[in-house]
Amino acid sequence: MTATIKLGELAEFLGATLRGSPEKEITGLATLQEAGPSQLSFLANPQYRKYLADSQAAALLLKAADAEGYAGDALVVPDPYLAYARVSHLFDPKPKAAGGIHPTAVIADDAQVDPAASIGAFAVIESGARIGAGVTVGAQCFIGARCEIGADGWLAPRVTLYHDVRIGQRVVIQSGAVIGGEGFGFANSKGVWHKIAQVGGVLIGDDVEIGVNTAVDRGALADTVIGNGVKLDNQIQIAHNVQIGDHTAMAACVGISGSTKIGKHCMLAGGVGLVGHIDICDNVFITGMTMVTHSITEPGAYSSGTAMQPAAEWRKSAARLRHIDDMARRLKQLEKRVGDVTPGGNASSEG
Amino acid sequence: MTATIKLGELAEFLGATLRGSPEKEITGLATLQEAGPSQLSFLANPQYRKYLADSQAAALLLKAADAEGYAGDALVVPDPYLAYARVSHLFDPKPKAAGGIHPTAVIADDAQVDPAASIGAFAVIESGARIGAGVTVGAQCFIGARCEIGADGWLAPRVTLYHDVRIGQRVVIQSGAVIGGEGFGFANSKGVWHKIAQVGGVLIGDDVEIGVNTAVDRGALADTVIGNGVKLDNQIQIAHNVQIGDHTAMAACVGISGSTKIGKHCMLAGGVGLVGHIDICDNVFITGMTMVTHSITEPGAYSSGTAMQPAAEWRKSAARLRHIDDMARRLKQLEKRVGDVTPGGNASSEG
Amino acid sequence: MTATIKLGELAEFLGATLRGSPEKEITGLATLQEAGPSQLSFLANPQYRKYLADSQAAALLLKAADAEGYAGDALVVPDPYLAYARVSHLFDPKPKAAGGIHPTAVIADDAQVDPAASIGAFAVIESGARIGAGVTVGAQCFIGARCEIGADGWLAPRVTLYHDVRIGQRVVIQSGAVIGGEGFGFANSKGVWHKIAQVGGVLIGDDVEIGVNTAVDRGALADTVIGNGVKLDNQIQIAHNVQIGDHTAMAACVGISGSTKIGKHCMLAGGVGLVGHIDICDNVFITGMTMVTHSITEPGAYSSGTAMQPAAEWRKSAARLRHIDDMARRLKQLEKRVGDVTPGGNASSEG
Repeated sequence: MTATIKLGELAEFLGATLRGSPEKEITGLATLQEAGPSQLSFLANPQYRKYLADSQAAALLLKAADAEGYAGDALVVPDPYLAYARVSHLFDPKPKAAGGIHPTAVIADDAQVDPAASIGAFAVIESGARIGAGVTVGAQCFIGARCEIGADGWLAPRVTLYHDVRIGQRVVIQSGAVIGGEGFGFANSKGVWHKIAQVGGVLIGDDVEIGVNTAVDRGALADTVIGNGVKLDNQIQIAHNVQIGDHTAMAACVGISGSTKIGKHCMLAGGVGLVGHIDICDNVFITGMTMVTHSITEPGAYSSGTAMQPAAEWRKSAARLRHIDDMARRLKQLEKRVGDVTPGGNASSEG
Repeated sequence: MTATIKLGELAEFLGATLRGSPEKEITGLATLQEAGPSQLSFLANPQYRKYLADSQAAALLLKAADAEGYAGDALVVPDPYLAYARVSHLFDPKPKAAGGIHPTAVIADDAQVDPAASIGAFAVIESGARIGAGVTVGAQCFIGARCEIGADGWLAPRVTLYHDVRIGQRVVIQSGAVIGGEGFGFANSKGVWHKIAQVGGVLIGDDVEIGVNTAVDRGALADTVIGNGVKLDNQIQIAHNVQIGDHTAMAACVGISGSTKIGKHCMLAGGVGLVGHIDICDNVFITGMTMVTHSITEPGAYSSGTAMQPAAEWRKSAARLRHIDDMARRLKQLEKRVGDVTPGGNASSEG
Repeated sequence: MTATIKLGELAEFLGATLRGSPEKEITGLATLQEAGPSQLSFLANPQYRKYLADSQAAALLLKAADAEGYAGDALVVPDPYLAYARVSHLFDPKPKAAGGIHPTAVIADDAQVDPAASIGAFAVIESGARIGAGVTVGAQCFIGARCEIGADGWLAPRVTLYHDVRIGQRVVIQSGAVIGGEGFGFANSKGVWHKIAQVGGVLIGDDVEIGVNTAVDRGALADTVIGNGVKLDNQIQIAHNVQIGDHTAMAACVGISGSTKIGKHCMLAGGVGLVGHIDICDNVFITGMTMVTHSITEPGAYSSGTAMQPAAEWRKSAARLRHIDDMARRLKQLEKRVGDVTPGGNASSEG
């Protein structure tokens, strides 16, 4: 179910400096505390340094500085976490898809499926779609008309692409994700909503990952655009005509409203919500469950929300907060009156 | 992939006043800034009026007042956005489903499928279900026992209806939506949860739209009810026995807890959450990510949450807010003391 | 579509004291207000006691104390809500799955399906999977390699299990749920995210329920673990390596970040979010939409967020809140100055 790889082979794969026997056999990966005597582990976070001494691991991925203070076998690398990421795939028990087209798949006559692609059971591939070399389309996937999936993509079982979704190379999409759904476009006339056809598509760059049950809507007129290297976690909502810059990452349960544009190298923590038609510049970090109601033009970290309290205290805080405007006016008035009778004048910094 | 339609035909379709050649060919739709010389555009939002002069569009949908100041070809209509909604469907590249029943579909002997319906590959239609004329059931859909889908409905690929879901006419359901799931009903006895069978169904009116990966649970005893013309965006959660009034719209990621009743013509912005067993009256607008913990009896706009700040400032605000009850008491005490020593008396409007 | 059961049989099933004719036929369940003359109802919440007198129900599930004041037929039980939960399943119109393996299902040669299991149309069961006795695998489900599903489980149509997901007995999983998706694990190097293979699995206890479109990610190294009796509502996100203690319940739209550990008998209301790498002790209740940013070590109720206001008032509150740190400093300064000129000294309790 998992591989057995010699320590020397791992050193060569990583370009690491090996300390220990190249013949030692590694059968898997585990944390410093849980690793057994045939498993590889790593130290990336300095606060786990305390677990080094007692680790039972066969060998560790370590920075040179940490390797000095460690007596056991090691692969010395500049970035142990990155090295762990790289070797993790060697030990992944994920089954490799069978090559070719499963006999139950339904594929349009004019769809183009590369001979080096894998199409799973009960997959449906519609007219004009193009599936690149090395692509895995999982069981029960639906690939709409004229979609394109670039080389070496991996679609888990049960991924749905509506028509006219174009995807770059090496893109990973988890189960339940829906790309190209019809965005929420309606014109209201006398209280009744009239649907607006969503005639745009979706354009997804290279090396993108899209999580479980995440939705990326198609554009209303132009395309919704996901840049290269973007990573979207589970249960995310990307509305029509959103644009996401390269290498931006979003944790689970984020919601981005229509036509909002997000820069490169941004990070959105879980549960963040953005209103529509705003711009977020590059290198912005937004903390969990923040509500973003206007554009952000300066890189940096941003937050909203309130800190958790025991519920009884919270009820008092929430009740008082409803009257904070009154409190602020009373404070100002008091400052004025105190200023009138004391020597120091007004202390307000708010004006 | 898209249609070509003459300007005169569009004028006739819309009942618009045509300014320009009826023979001009229109091949698609685009925004004012992006439209090319064979595309139709529109001006709905006054703040885009500045783009009128430079638009390359073949023709514009305009109000009479705006048409006066515009030199190019135009279709003059009372409501350009509504007109755009109507013509958008003429240019929709969405493939039309093949008629009839796909040979791979599994359909119960006693299910009734109208000869003018379309059933996609790998669809499953269970005992006693009834599919109306003009309905499209996409590939990989599951239609449970005794479900009814009224005429001209459109179910995207991979929509799941549990048993006893009744749906009106012209209803659109996007991929991944699940209607009729078993709601969260459990009786707790000595710390252990015992499941309560959810014996109700779901009743959905005419002209409803349900978004990608949205969940509408079946009723615990009576039905969950979605009124006519209701529009639900993606990733929404509707719990058991919720009732939603006609023409109410909800943006993505809204969650409605059990037995809550929402009026007609309400609008819930993205990420709003409602507790259970409350009533929201007609014509209520709730802003994004608001937490609604009690009934609303007056039409109007409602909000909760805090404004975004740079994270360092936010940390101070959040820390202070935990002590706002103390601040309020100190302010009141100070007012009392200052009132004792100054002529003006107490300034509080709260006390 | 629903059963007819005699009152005497229900009394025997519940071990209840019967008041009325054992031959009376019950055809279903309904609320006190809606029950007709052949339906059974119940009184669990004291605030509905006012509906007792006018109920048209054939019989009621009542506590002894409530039965005294009620003239109609009754089944007297210690816990009417629990009794309702138990009888609800007798009247559930949910279709029972046909036994055996549907001819369209695709099952690996070395998968083990118990003869007393039911496998639906278009289900896919991969190599080495084991399906226990009495298990229902709904249509269009995907069961990955080496998964195990314990006896008497029920998977609705279209549930996806990635490989190496082990599930206990009597587990219910609703449509669209995805168990074992690849969690959000990436190493950042020079601004580019590198995927970390998620080599752990998912371990789910007995008597668990998982709601519609809920996602439970597989572990990065060790398993993600869901304890016995845990109930997860719809649209929930459980990240990699989360551990959830026995009999904990979560309402819809909750999001739990990676490696967070939640105790036993906790309750998380709708929309709650937890950051990663924290511990929540047993018997914690978290109110709706709370953001939990640190560990909780004491049982009790916890909250965050602000109370809903009319939007115009809310805008003032939110604007003032951004300056609460300034207000707090000014208040303290004012206290100091007033303390200087009045006899009483400083009133601050904050210091």
